[in-house]
Amino acid sequence: MTMPHSESTDSESSGHEHGHHGYISEKDAYLKRLRRIEGQARGIQNMVADEKYCIDILTQISAMTSALESVALGLLNDHLSHCVVEAVAEGGEVAEEKLKEAKDAIARLVRS
Amino acid sequence: MTMPHSESTDSESSGHEHGHHGYISEKDAYLKRLRRIEGQARGIQNMVADEKYCIDILTQISAMTSALESVALGLLNDHLSHCVVEAVAEGGEVAEEKLKEAKDAIARLVRS
Amino acid sequence: MTMPHSESTDSESSGHEHGHHGYISEKDAYLKRLRRIEGQARGIQNMVADEKYCIDILTQISAMTSALESVALGLLNDHLSHCVVEAVAEGGEVAEEKLKEAKDAIARLVRS
Amino acid sequence: MTMPHSESTDSESSGHEHGHHGYISEKDAYLKRLRRIEGQARGIQNMVADEKYCIDILTQISAMTSALESVALGLLNDHLSHCVVEAVAEGGEVAEEKLKEAKDAIARLVRS
Repeated sequence: MTMPHSESTDSESSGHEHGHHGYISEKDAYLKRLRRIEGQARGIQNMVADEKYCIDILTQISAMTSALESVALGLLNDHLSHCVVEAVAEGGEVAEEKLKEAKDAIARLVRS
Repeated sequence: MTMPHSESTDSESSGHEHGHHGYISEKDAYLKRLRRIEGQARGIQNMVADEKYCIDILTQISAMTSALESVALGLLNDHLSHCVVEAVAEGGEVAEEKLKEAKDAIARLVRS
Repeated sequence: MTMPHSESTDSESSGHEHGHHGYISEKDAYLKRLRRIEGQARGIQNMVADEKYCIDILTQISAMTSALESVALGLLNDHLSHCVVEAVAEGGEVAEEKLKEAKDAIARLVRS
Repeated sequence: MTMPHSESTDSESSGHEHGHHGYISEKDAYLKRLRRIEGQARGIQNMVADEKYCIDILTQISAMTSALESVALGLLNDHLSHCVVEAVAEGGEVAEEKLKEAKDAIARLVRS
C-alpha cells in the first residue's frame, strides 16, 4: 500500500554501490506484480467472508499461486544472471556457496 | 480492501440460513490464515523495495506458496465433505456436475 | 516386461463381481499410458548412460512427470466417481473414511 | 565413471574428451535410481492390471513422482556446477545461452 521504495531513490541508487543487492532487473515491475498478488489475497479474504462458492475461491487461489510462482522464477533468473554469474567469475568458496544457495532455493520452489 | 467480514457478524450468521455457501467449517480460521498470507505478500514487497537478498525473498515466497496451498486443500476438503456429499446424496445431474467441478479444481491445484 | 494382465482376462472380468476394485473405467488405456511411462524411464536411463546433454534429459523427465500426474488425476477421478460416490450413498463411517482417504491422496498429489 | 551397464567403456572414456557431456557426477547412482523408477512404473502397471485399491496406486504414483523430481534436481545441480559454471567462466554468448537453457529447464520443473 505505502511504497517505501519510492521515496528512497537516493539511498537506493547509492545502495547499488555499497551492499544492497542491486540485481533485481525490474524492481518496479516486480512491485507491481506483488501488489496485484496482495490484492488477490485481499479478494480471496472477501470471498471467504462473503461465503462465495468454494470452487470459485479455489480458482482464485490457483491463479494467485501461479502469479507467485512466476515472480519467484523471475527473481531466481535475475539472481542466476547476476549474483551467481559474478560469484562464479570470482570463483573459489564464494562461488560454491552461491551455487549451493541457488540449488537449495530451486529445490524449495520445485517442491513447494 | 476494507475488511467487510469483521463488521458483518450478523449478516454472516444469518447467511448460513439463506443461500450462502455455509460449508466453510472454520471461516474465522481461514480469514486469519489469509490475512497472514496478505501480510506475507506485503513483507515480500518490502523486501524487494529494500533490495533484500534474492535467496531470502525466494524463501519467503516458498513459505507463502505453501501457506496458500494449505488453505486451498482445506477449502477443497470442506467442499468435498459438504457440497459434494450433499449433491451425491441427491444424485442425478447436479451430482455429476459438482463432481466434475471438484475434479477440475483438483487438477488446477495439482498443476499449479 | 511380460504382461501379466493380458492372460488374465477371465479372472479379471469375474474379479469385478467378487472383491476387486472394478472402478477403473478404462483399464487398458491406463496400462497403455503406464507402459509408455515405463518406456520413458528406460529412455532416460539410456540418455544418462550415453551422457546425453543434461537439459535434454531434464526435458524428458518433465514430460514423464506430467504423464504420471495425468494418470494420477485420471485414477483419482475414477475413484471419486465410483468408490467415493458409492460410500457416500451408503453413508456412515465408511463414507467418512473414504473421504478422508481421498483427501489425503489429493494432498499428496498437490504437494508432490 | 565406470560403466557397468554397457559394453561401451572405450567410446565412453574417450567420449569425455570429445563431445560427450561428462558432467554427470555419479552416473551409476543415477542409473540405479532410474532403474528403481522403472521398476515402480512396472509395479504400478501390475497394480492397475490387478485392480488394486486406487488409493494405494495413487500412493505409489506420488512416491514415483517424488523419486523422479529428486533425480531431476540432482541432474540440474550437476549441470549448474559443471556446464553452466564452465560456460560462465568462458563468458560471451555461450554463457548467455547456457543460462537461458538452465532457466527454462528450472521453469519446466517448477511448473510440472
